[in-house]
Amino acid sequence: MGMTMSEKILAKAAGRSEVKAGEIVWVKADIAMMHDLLGPWLIDGGFRRLGGQLFDKEKVVVVSDHCTPPATVQQADILKFTRDWAREQDLPYYYEFEGPCHQVIVEHGHVRPGRLILGTDSHTCMAGGLGAFATGIGSTEMIGVLLTGETWMKVPETIKVVWDGELPHGVYAKDIVLKTIKDIGHAGATYQTLEFSGSAIRGLSMDERLVLSNMAVEAGAKTGLIEPDEKVIEFLRSKGATDEIEDLFSDEDASYSRILHYNASELEPQIACPHEIDNVHPVSAVEGKSVDQVYLGSCTNGRLSDLRIAAEILKGKKIAKHIRCLVVPASQHIWMEANKEGILNILTEAGCIVNMPSCGACGGFTSGVIGAGEVVMSSSNRNFRGRMGSPDGEVYLGSPATVAATAIEGKIADPRKYLLQGVR
Amino acid sequence: MGMTMSEKILAKAAGRSEVKAGEIVWVKADIAMMHDLLGPWLIDGGFRRLGGQLFDKEKVVVVSDHCTPPATVQQADILKFTRDWAREQDLPYYYEFEGPCHQVIVEHGHVRPGRLILGTDSHTCMAGGLGAFATGIGSTEMIGVLLTGETWMKVPETIKVVWDGELPHGVYAKDIVLKTIKDIGHAGATYQTLEFSGSAIRGLSMDERLVLSNMAVEAGAKTGLIEPDEKVIEFLRSKGATDEIEDLFSDEDASYSRILHYNASELEPQIACPHEIDNVHPVSAVEGKSVDQVYLGSCTNGRLSDLRIAAEILKGKKIAKHIRCLVVPASQHIWMEANKEGILNILTEAGCIVNMPSCGACGGFTSGVIGAGEVVMSSSNRNFRGRMGSPDGEVYLGSPATVAATAIEGKIADPRKYLLQGVR
Repeated sequence: MGMTMSEKILAKAAGRSEVKAGEIVWVKADIAMMHDLLGPWLIDGGFRRLGGQLFDKEKVVVVSDHCTPPATVQQADILKFTRDWAREQDLPYYYEFEGPCHQVIVEHGHVRPGRLILGTDSHTCMAGGLGAFATGIGSTEMIGVLLTGETWMKVPETIKVVWDGELPHGVYAKDIVLKTIKDIGHAGATYQTLEFSGSAIRGLSMDERLVLSNMAVEAGAKTGLIEPDEKVIEFLRSKGATDEIEDLFSDEDASYSRILHYNASELEPQIACPHEIDNVHPVSAVEGKSVDQVYLGSCTNGRLSDLRIAAEILKGKKIAKHIRCLVVPASQHIWMEANKEGILNILTEAGCIVNMPSCGACGGFTSGVIGAGEVVMSSSNRNFRGRMGSPDGEVYLGSPATVAATAIEGKIADPRKYLLQGVR
Repeated sequence: MGMTMSEKILAKAAGRSEVKAGEIVWVKADIAMMHDLLGPWLIDGGFRRLGGQLFDKEKVVVVSDHCTPPATVQQADILKFTRDWAREQDLPYYYEFEGPCHQVIVEHGHVRPGRLILGTDSHTCMAGGLGAFATGIGSTEMIGVLLTGETWMKVPETIKVVWDGELPHGVYAKDIVLKTIKDIGHAGATYQTLEFSGSAIRGLSMDERLVLSNMAVEAGAKTGLIEPDEKVIEFLRSKGATDEIEDLFSDEDASYSRILHYNASELEPQIACPHEIDNVHPVSAVEGKSVDQVYLGSCTNGRLSDLRIAAEILKGKKIAKHIRCLVVPASQHIWMEANKEGILNILTEAGCIVNMPSCGACGGFTSGVIGAGEVVMSSSNRNFRGRMGSPDGEVYLGSPATVAATAIEGKIADPRKYLLQGVR
């Protein structure tokens, strides 16, 4: 009996030739990642009481992203604590003011196919888009990982999600993942791995693949994996990788708990409606809903290709009066690249506001929080009640194209009418 | 006996041919300005109880700038309240996400020589740089102004501050005003008008003149005036003014409570040290002091010429490791102009973070608040204990050039060594 990608990576992390779903194994982390809000500030006490020695500082990555820029003295204090801690531990990999951790660790080459990446954030799973088994753990569990480099894990079963066919114009990875989560349910993949495959997935750019893996946790999944093909290798080479990159595919006879098949060519733009991520409807069902704020950005959908498509839609147009459109690139690197391409000029000419990369508005703790009664159309990954601010606000999620079209109309809009046929 | 500018404007506002310092007069406001934090949200109850009818909606300007982008649900609720109030009152002039009110009302042509401008913010005095008598009032007092268009005021005495000579390279309006406040003291001009004049003042650009008037209140002044010359008229014409612009100079025989004379050519870069605005020293006295954050922006010194000088200093260089440099243009208009000139590319290449225009970091309530023990070098206008966040932080103030030089060294630095001779 063959193994899934998920089993193969965990077998390697467990130092074994084979593991099977359902087994409990001890695994070694290749990367232990913390961010400021759930990192050093929280774990330092326990970490010190248990010895205070890092298992391997080369494998510890700290990214301050939730408290940048600080909106309160407490956030500023947490940021300072994190920065000082990284310096005191002499960490070679500490980043701040660079953007959300999930994007930053991809850009800085910490993510590789076959690695086990443990992070103190639920969307750590994003790294699975490059073929790493990446998952969120609690801060307490992280203390053990920091001290020993290990943790135990039940090997998850895998749900295989196959998207074949070609995406129609105006339909994107975000629509794929929203439709998938709708069918699986927000807890339908709990403690399982989601493995995305099929010709439609292989057709996606790296930027778009990361949307799928980012949102795997929204179906409850432990991680979301995509087989690392030539695009991944090319991407890693472009980031300076010179060593061998692992050839990592699920075996033909691997065992899956469930297999879902889709034809991408039939997909329409999808919208996740308040207040659950699996409350998903085709855009036609919610078109015309008035919004107060439009949010284009986040680690889910704030990458260069996302900003490009929004700029294509908004070029020469103006956003609706009485709404605001906040643009938050997924990293400082992307901010700068987008600006060099002229994208930020186009977006600001249209009336958008460009903010610095941070987790702020997406997580509802700074830089664009919503008030009671306010409605947001967002390209981010979560629409729980209160996620972006007031529990009496409403968050709709969709692709950057849907977000940009909505910005023009001030109402949830179908992006397809703003895009030339044949343009993706 | 002649009148000062200040007396002339208040005489007109009082409907009289002459007023004298010390008199109490009823004056009519040309503009009543409120921002979100001290505006509709605070005054609405009293305003309604007293009738709820605006004296003249064409003369009421509301700018949401303190709660943009909202960092908390409360801020979001205040922002929404302000927006809804402006809509309900059918205000023709409501602005948000455009930047700090003082800059926004200048850019949108609400400020004219000879106008009386009352605003619910202490730095309302900035409009005096265009020859308006502009001053901050409390929110309760604003209720009366909104209902009647009038308030009473004691006609202030005027302190004349004469700066003759030519500013040396690397020395700016910010250095002029810090030196002036040092000598007058932070309460030395209480309830008086500051009138800046002399050849060095006439030599300043519009951008720089607004630095002087902005900070007049830091010496306790009611307003800070500069005689509106050709530069002001040219500026207003460029903003679309087509009507007659008032010829408004103090009479030769006007009476002053005090006259100070300075020679600009002897001035060095000045630094206001913690925790008072009049604790001012030449840069040489504090050079080398380590900083954690550098802040280039605000309504005081975030205009285009400020960003240009910082870009000139930072071009091709990198900011010091372990500090962050936040750039916050004084308005969205300036953000866009600076970006078109390539300034934001230069600054981000140097390692700066560009944020959206807002009052956030300067006022210590979002987008760059400092923590305990942190030190900031800032181009903003106030360094009271706790102004930018923690009361255990420290704020040093200087010109944009000093701020940019400090960003390079990570320590308070003299900008003159980074500037070519002859470049201002």
